[in-house]
Amino acid sequence: MFFFPLRQELLKWNGWGYNDSKFIFNKKGQAEFTGKRYRLGGMVLPTFKEWIEKTFGASLEHKTTSRASLNVNDVPPSIVNEEFLQDLRATKISYSQDAEDRVFRAHGHCLHEIFVLREGMFKRIPDIVVWPVCHEDVVKIVELACKHNLCIIPFGGGTSVSSALECPEEEKRTIVSLDTSQMLAESGFCTGHEPDSMEFSSLGGWVATRASGMKKNIYGNIEDLVIHIKMVTPRGIVEKNCQVPRMSTGPDIHHFIMGSEGTLGVVTEVTIKIRPVPEYQKYGSVVFPNFERGVACLREVAKILRALFASICLFLLFAKGHALKPQVASIFTSFLDGLKKFYITKFKGFDPNILCVATLLFEGDREKVLQHEKQVYDIATKFGGLAAGEDNGQRGYMLTFVIAYLRDLGLDYYVIGESFETSVPWDRVLDLCRNVKERIVRECKEKGVQFAPLSTCRVTQTYDAGACVYFYFAFNYRGISDPIHVYEQIERAAREEILANGGSLSHHHGVGKLRKRWMKESISDVGLGMLRSVKEYVDPNNIFGNKNLL
Amino acid sequence: MFFFPLRQELLKWNGWGYNDSKFIFNKKGQAEFTGKRYRLGGMVLPTFKEWIEKTFGASLEHKTTSRASLNVNDVPPSIVNEEFLQDLRATKISYSQDAEDRVFRAHGHCLHEIFVLREGMFKRIPDIVVWPVCHEDVVKIVELACKHNLCIIPFGGGTSVSSALECPEEEKRTIVSLDTSQMLAESGFCTGHEPDSMEFSSLGGWVATRASGMKKNIYGNIEDLVIHIKMVTPRGIVEKNCQVPRMSTGPDIHHFIMGSEGTLGVVTEVTIKIRPVPEYQKYGSVVFPNFERGVACLREVAKILRALFASICLFLLFAKGHALKPQVASIFTSFLDGLKKFYITKFKGFDPNILCVATLLFEGDREKVLQHEKQVYDIATKFGGLAAGEDNGQRGYMLTFVIAYLRDLGLDYYVIGESFETSVPWDRVLDLCRNVKERIVRECKEKGVQFAPLSTCRVTQTYDAGACVYFYFAFNYRGISDPIHVYEQIERAAREEILANGGSLSHHHGVGKLRKRWMKESISDVGLGMLRSVKEYVDPNNIFGNKNLL
Repeated sequence: MFFFPLRQELLKWNGWGYNDSKFIFNKKGQAEFTGKRYRLGGMVLPTFKEWIEKTFGASLEHKTTSRASLNVNDVPPSIVNEEFLQDLRATKISYSQDAEDRVFRAHGHCLHEIFVLREGMFKRIPDIVVWPVCHEDVVKIVELACKHNLCIIPFGGGTSVSSALECPEEEKRTIVSLDTSQMLAESGFCTGHEPDSMEFSSLGGWVATRASGMKKNIYGNIEDLVIHIKMVTPRGIVEKNCQVPRMSTGPDIHHFIMGSEGTLGVVTEVTIKIRPVPEYQKYGSVVFPNFERGVACLREVAKILRALFASICLFLLFAKGHALKPQVASIFTSFLDGLKKFYITKFKGFDPNILCVATLLFEGDREKVLQHEKQVYDIATKFGGLAAGEDNGQRGYMLTFVIAYLRDLGLDYYVIGESFETSVPWDRVLDLCRNVKERIVRECKEKGVQFAPLSTCRVTQTYDAGACVYFYFAFNYRGISDPIHVYEQIERAAREEILANGGSLSHHHGVGKLRKRWMKESISDVGLGMLRSVKEYVDPNNIFGNKNLL
Repeated sequence: MFFFPLRQELLKWNGWGYNDSKFIFNKKGQAEFTGKRYRLGGMVLPTFKEWIEKTFGASLEHKTTSRASLNVNDVPPSIVNEEFLQDLRATKISYSQDAEDRVFRAHGHCLHEIFVLREGMFKRIPDIVVWPVCHEDVVKIVELACKHNLCIIPFGGGTSVSSALECPEEEKRTIVSLDTSQMLAESGFCTGHEPDSMEFSSLGGWVATRASGMKKNIYGNIEDLVIHIKMVTPRGIVEKNCQVPRMSTGPDIHHFIMGSEGTLGVVTEVTIKIRPVPEYQKYGSVVFPNFERGVACLREVAKILRALFASICLFLLFAKGHALKPQVASIFTSFLDGLKKFYITKFKGFDPNILCVATLLFEGDREKVLQHEKQVYDIATKFGGLAAGEDNGQRGYMLTFVIAYLRDLGLDYYVIGESFETSVPWDRVLDLCRNVKERIVRECKEKGVQFAPLSTCRVTQTYDAGACVYFYFAFNYRGISDPIHVYEQIERAAREEILANGGSLSHHHGVGKLRKRWMKESISDVGLGMLRSVKEYVDPNNIFGNKNLL
């Protein structure tokens, strides 16, 4: 909830998040989450071992190995010409050519990126990292890059899952990683913007990717929060002359900047709405007999959401099997042990293979929260939902932050996986979810995956006109010689299925290099040409050469 | 609230709105509004004559004359080459070269445009009007325009107040007015988008200008309502591939289209959110001792507006004198006669020269409306506001629709005037209002205006981060040889003052040709260059040559 600079030394070099926070199997063979940063820290998850073995056919006997630390001999050399270095030193801006610093900024958190860190090395990484501390520093760096014809890749929090931060292998110029994470001052207010990556991602990154947070129903997405943006481009500085809530002075240049993914310049200043920290918070959860009823309930709540706007900020729907039983078990319900007992003993009518769970979070003033909570539960009841307590709700919310840690555990046991998201109109949600999950299972079979995959989804955000849906896909890759390639082929097929079902290319993860093959289809030839025309004007020499989007 | 095609034959050729609706002075010398379209129709306004005489120094003895009807001999000839006409006939698309049809589409409703209609003739008007009925018709027209090198000016409802529809005098090519108003089917739903011009303006026009409506607090501005846009450009068709509530696939191309003011192409299809007609509506009004308290109250309401989001859609603040007494009387209070008695008799503490009035409209379900109404009145009380009844509120809301009719009456008596708007952060509202109003008065003196002008303002829309402010400026121009030029110089000075006080170039009227001199200052050199680069890509031969914005 507070801005803070990225502290590289606290973070894993080859996995998600903090060094001290990870899933392990303890001496008793029980899964446990380490560290004290998260509420889950120190907790033992009794059914987790069984779940991972059963779901993936994984065995704790068969553990993969990966490099314990970065081998600097593997790292491509830093090639930076001396004239540039002289000019850079004259600016007094901090920089580094150390292997660790450069590798840390050579990637985001796509599966293939983490896999490369564990098993090999990137062919191309930044040659130098620079740490500007203010707008003027950035202006100087961009000027030097133009003067010396360098390639700049802006770096915020490094949490990208679109290959946006990977260096184009064919880039011959010196690549400068421009790290903006230290440019944000700490602040005691609340923006309300809480993406899953909130702890690590940066304000500039939120703007550059068109970010969305879990509390967007209260606070809005990044485009609703931003009042003013200043960006440094090779053509000069772009910004509006005033800090007004709304204006009509031609096409909105903020929307030329938001989503530009580092291809046009560096965002150096953002004026964002802040609010007092909310007086009161309350979690909640609802179990629905099946995914269909859950989605119908969410749609109904979204319809009247404006009436609830004051406090409901989250309504995550965790799908369990949903038409893929019995081979798919939800990754989530392992965490919802309390819940399990609850529904099994008290509401046996619910088939554990097809039920689903919604997580709620209300915040605002106390009276409103209680009032809206009642309204939501009343609606849920109409759709067959059963209230399942605050604790499960809180665990569900927290889960969002620790999901990313799970993949590292899987990687230790030959399980690879990823999540990806889309947005979709309400009337297509169910078809899209079913078809994409089935497509994943089918593709796995065809590609020779020997164990049934995890293929599940959740509705993570709701709008009046549709929803954001996340898919979770993972499989045991033992016996497959090129697991990452197989994974990527299947994810690609899943994206084709999403698009064929009326879903978008991305709700908020962005395009990067991973999804750019579909850009023309997504925004039409002319739409893509418009983006290109802006790029060519702003950056004719492709100084911002990360090759995202276009 | 419903879409309907523009019916030219019902509308004035040289003034605002319907032929049968206007302010007149009846045989008794009393002001009256004619026709039955508005609730004000047939009503006598007893104090209006006195008000107009006192405020402007106008005399009903001195009436201007204007042309009773269009003199077709004054109208520039239609120059259209025969090859194009042959091609056009082959498409079966309706067209006209009649003088009336062409003049009707040669202008919007800026003061100088109406003045020209009354006193002279435009130097350049469209040569031909075409009426496509579907997307494919528009594609054909744009293709023909490219083939024959013609200039297309899209026309929606003709309510522009930015000179956007005026033909560039130096345009040598045939100018085709492409009227889209008949392309909208009638519909029984409610969009909630209610700009002052709602009765006449078009959906395509709302998109092209980034429109805002009076009920935006409930329903949102046009950017919040639009789900999908299709636009025909000389480069081809631009649109997204899906109809999702939100996506992150690079910069949002909808925002390249919204606000493009007819410079890039023609919007042919828009998918917009609709809602059931609200169950319950309730008007309201509050009198504040002064403008400062009123603004403070609005800001407080805006802060908690999300809690009230369900139903409050309007909170107009009509300023009276505000630091310009006694020479300025509010144009509005003439209509609030009932109110006048109310505060004079019951609350004598309020100085009639500095009080101000807020108009409220709540809509939604009945229970919420009543609940939110109470909350708003409670807040208003804290700021010294006194509830002033539903009737005054309803009159105030209705006034918004008839204000535009007032100017035509003024023009009959040597009074010229206009309104213009801006957006501004909350902390600048009071300074901006005071400084702009004073600047207008000062400029009038310097320019030789003999009578004190009307120089007043109102807050028309509120956001968490600021407000939209309208200024109303009018003066008696007797004794001035070039009144329009003087008017424009003063409005220009007022805009300079707005910008110097942190206001925007436009909240929702747009830029057109009237305000384009400030575009560079408003969105920076690079920002303007980005817009130009899109224009050059999409329309390299400037087929959409209305010369707005850039």
